[in-house]
Amino acid sequence: MVGVTSDNRRLVLAERPVGMVDERTLRMETVPPPVPGPGEALARVRWLSIDPTIRTWMDDRPGYLPPIVVGDVVRGAGIAEVVDSRTDRYAEGDLVYAMTGWQDYTLFAEGENVAQVLPAGIEPATALSVFGINGMTAWFGLLEVGALQPGDTVVVSGGAGATGSLVGQIARLKGAGRVVGIAGTPEKCAWLTGTLGFDVAVDYRSENVAAALHRHCPAGIDLYFDNVGGEILDVCLGQLAMRGRVVLCGAISAYNATGRPLGPANVVNLIPRRGRMEGFIILDYVERFATAQLELAGWMAEGKIVHAEHVVRGLERAPEALNMLFTGANTGKVVVEL
Amino acid sequence: MVGVTSDNRRLVLAERPVGMVDERTLRMETVPPPVPGPGEALARVRWLSIDPTIRTWMDDRPGYLPPIVVGDVVRGAGIAEVVDSRTDRYAEGDLVYAMTGWQDYTLFAEGENVAQVLPAGIEPATALSVFGINGMTAWFGLLEVGALQPGDTVVVSGGAGATGSLVGQIARLKGAGRVVGIAGTPEKCAWLTGTLGFDVAVDYRSENVAAALHRHCPAGIDLYFDNVGGEILDVCLGQLAMRGRVVLCGAISAYNATGRPLGPANVVNLIPRRGRMEGFIILDYVERFATAQLELAGWMAEGKIVHAEHVVRGLERAPEALNMLFTGANTGKVVVEL
Repeated sequence: MVGVTSDNRRLVLAERPVGMVDERTLRMETVPPPVPGPGEALARVRWLSIDPTIRTWMDDRPGYLPPIVVGDVVRGAGIAEVVDSRTDRYAEGDLVYAMTGWQDYTLFAEGENVAQVLPAGIEPATALSVFGINGMTAWFGLLEVGALQPGDTVVVSGGAGATGSLVGQIARLKGAGRVVGIAGTPEKCAWLTGTLGFDVAVDYRSENVAAALHRHCPAGIDLYFDNVGGEILDVCLGQLAMRGRVVLCGAISAYNATGRPLGPANVVNLIPRRGRMEGFIILDYVERFATAQLELAGWMAEGKIVHAEHVVRGLERAPEALNMLFTGANTGKVVVEL
Repeated sequence: MVGVTSDNRRLVLAERPVGMVDERTLRMETVPPPVPGPGEALARVRWLSIDPTIRTWMDDRPGYLPPIVVGDVVRGAGIAEVVDSRTDRYAEGDLVYAMTGWQDYTLFAEGENVAQVLPAGIEPATALSVFGINGMTAWFGLLEVGALQPGDTVVVSGGAGATGSLVGQIARLKGAGRVVGIAGTPEKCAWLTGTLGFDVAVDYRSENVAAALHRHCPAGIDLYFDNVGGEILDVCLGQLAMRGRVVLCGAISAYNATGRPLGPANVVNLIPRRGRMEGFIILDYVERFATAQLELAGWMAEGKIVHAEHVVRGLERAPEALNMLFTGANTGKVVVEL
């Protein structure tokens, strides 16, 4: 139980970033916490889920959600603890997974359907990763969009990230023939093969990715789960197996690009390979999250899923935490603890 | 009935082209016609189907069929008339649709399953276009790969080509909400809207395609049937409607490229749009051609399908006919009559 202190600190978008978020992008404001009315609950934000997609919302570009308005608090998921409830839906002390925003306090209204009270026994960091956006993205992206088949050779980029690390593990648990992760340091690669059970890890900073994939996927790539876009997407398109599938989850290599990124010329290979490339947004699957969460909970209980969190402390460090996703400073899920 | 003359002229691949086919690429050879053995039939080639894909077979690159071997006759579909049959399968005088190659004479064997005797009443040029590769490609690409839905806004590039002109007409007949063709001259555009019933035609040589599509497809593109690749593919990816589909049929803008073509940076738009891009090869649908041919035959009988042939006379002009597909000199199907 956390009491209401006098201030609500919040990070608002001061100006749209050009390239990486820097000291001009966000502004810390201090305002009084909102006061819950009837049917509402005030909650103190405890953890923030740091996701690459937040960077895309800072641009003034049409996307799957509207851009963050300049002057508004940064949009983002998190877990908040209810501290003052005027509704039967939330009890004080409840931990609620919701779009809290980058701030100390948030208000939940009765009608909201995105806020979810965490069941007892679920660790907050796990709620944000395995049972949160990352686990859902990995599960639905791999199994539904990618239509994983037993025996498939699966390649995932951003392999040591929160989503990628789950993609590889789910693929393995679902009978993939070979799981190849692409990551950016020897330590990450060692974690993928040594701890997570990937068959192969390719270090894109020190290896020629095209040559490495040729070597490790001699029959081609059946399913490429793309978190990065850019050159690695192009390489994988060029090495698709017959009826190969490319799942477009994200394109972090482009999120901070200031010029127009290069496109993947190897899309033409989709023709002779009868390949399919498809994008998705996990919000479309919200009503079916329970199916995925149940299967993941079973694997977690059996110790079959390894997850890692990279915890950054302090709301003021949220921008730094976001940039980590693009510099590759993290392994696993980046969480800001307030 | 055409008799056997003494010579079989044939165009063989002399060297792999760099860029467009030129006078060094092919060599005309004159050899004796093959002699049919038991179970075989000799046929005189009468018409050649000139298709962009032939250019791709001239490159030394893995594709859906092996490259044409240097020194071998150019691979290609055509219609040949049986002149000397040693099998019950073919009668002398039969017109047979098959991979005849670019030559005067070809031999059919009993076991071959790709050769198809034309039914009475089917014009040879129509057999090569509406009932041939182009009609099949348009029908299966649009309806199966593209999963056309009634009301869809459909855009097709290479709109005045043999395949594109059928794509637009089939889309219209199947209830598309709007059919937009992209072509390269005012005459072709006038043909699409005035004769073929397209709603809109965009002249990519004189108009800004992105601006024109924005204007004509205000709710975005539901289905883009791509025959050209390159910049137009990129523009259409950037204007996809929610759950839009891109059918990759061909990429003629790249077939003669000497450098590495630019890729479509707008593939990232597949993510927020939940879009799908898929390639296909019509050979995979051979066993189901009859379904498509039947529907097309019905439309033809009702006068609902317009088709055009661009006939070039003489085997020696086949290379010139092939280049037409890339310079856009043709409207409709290019056929070489021998």
